Amino acid sequence: MAQTPRRVVVLLSGGLDSATVLAMLRAQDCEVHAISVAYGQRHSAELNAARRVAQSMGVTSHRLMQVNLDAIGGSALTDASIAVPEMQASFSAHEIPVTYVPARNTLFLSLALGLAEVVGAHDLYIGVNAVDYSGYPDCRPAFIEAFERLANLATRAGIEGEGFKLHAPLIDMSKAEIIRTGDALGVDYAMTVSCYQSDDEGRACGRCDACHLRRDGFAASGLADPTRYV
Amino acid sequence: MAQTPRRVVVLLSGGLDSATVLAMLRAQDCEVHAISVAYGQRHSAELNAARRVAQSMGVTSHRLMQVNLDAIGGSALTDASIAVPEMQASFSAHEIPVTYVPARNTLFLSLALGLAEVVGAHDLYIGVNAVDYSGYPDCRPAFIEAFERLANLATRAGIEGEGFKLHAPLIDMSKAEIIRTGDALGVDYAMTVSCYQSDDEGRACGRCDACHLRRDGFAASGLADPTRYV
Repeated sequence: MAQTPRRVVVLLSGGLDSATVLAMLRAQDCEVHAISVAYGQRHSAELNAARRVAQSMGVTSHRLMQVNLDAIGGSALTDASIAVPEMQASFSAHEIPVTYVPARNTLFLSLALGLAEVVGAHDLYIGVNAVDYSGYPDCRPAFIEAFERLANLATRAGIEGEGFKLHAPLIDMSKAEIIRTGDALGVDYAMTVSCYQSDDEGRACGRCDACHLRRDGFAASGLADPTRYV
Repeated sequence: MAQTPRRVVVLLSGGLDSATVLAMLRAQDCEVHAISVAYGQRHSAELNAARRVAQSMGVTSHRLMQVNLDAIGGSALTDASIAVPEMQASFSAHEIPVTYVPARNTLFLSLALGLAEVVGAHDLYIGVNAVDYSGYPDCRPAFIEAFERLANLATRAGIEGEGFKLHAPLIDMSKAEIIRTGDALGVDYAMTVSCYQSDDEGRACGRCDACHLRRDGFAASGLADPTRYV
């Protein structure tokens, strides 16, 4: 007898990592409710990528949330007065990059939590990984644990129901391991956009942190890199 | 020598409670950065009220954030297919009302946290109180503590700097105590809107939970109720 598919909510950015998470879940026949967030980032290419990825992998629903984080500013990704740097010395020195968006993952997860409660999912997925958490505070395991704890105090489902589990399945993986995992599951990484300042057609700058990490990841994976550059 | 004013971020809804919190902070000469959230609630009267309150109390900045929570739904306040009930039997029985918005305070606080980090504030204020937390999970002291813990793991300022403190100064107060406190500080409650379905001019329905709580609060306070009803 067929089991009822597990219902999950996935944060989908249009990047390489969350596309891999989605492929892992679809390989387990999960019923996936995807959520993407337009938050005043400089380009819409990653949201178009999120749409393509969601569609190609057969999600059950995909919601686009919109939040005017540019009204808060404070990041090179939402504030036009702060330049996106080329590969930062600071990144390798484990400092927090200027591409850090204040409280971004807390915000994204609060939206994912609200959606999970409404659709009746108990598992939330976010594609943070070890490479990110060297630079971003809200990508570390301690953050993931603290959000899960909060989720179970903040919600009707957390108190009255079965509660929530927050999963970060890539958290200990290198970029190369992520790419090999996704490749084995048939992910077409040409659909994904990692660059912080890609053009409208999703072509990457080749110079920002995100481009460097992606390129190095493909090189280390031994797989062909399908990224298109400007 | 005059002290540098304490810089704080306050969630301002346009209702009675957050107006009182704002008055308490202005009485201490705090530099207040207020933040209101338009989240697909049914009426704009409360956001107009938030603007009036912010202006009359001399905040340093007031930001209006916009989030399309209606794309998630699940609440009588964001989903037009769910009716706002008249005074609910369930409310007095300590059940969670249908006006509960999934993960709302987690979302609001994540926006307040991002703003605090950008303006360099270390103190966040939210006007939840005992009456609310009988019904809403994200108004309870355990939720407030869990969010504060998360805030200090989620952010650059939490890790590298002085960290954040989340204050809920009304949390143990009755509606009558809140009203007497604000009245003593000169709050003009005629500016505020509590009703879940007030009309465009801010006139209250007189029948929903929020109207009942407000009316009972004024009655118990012994002060005149300036609320205008339809």
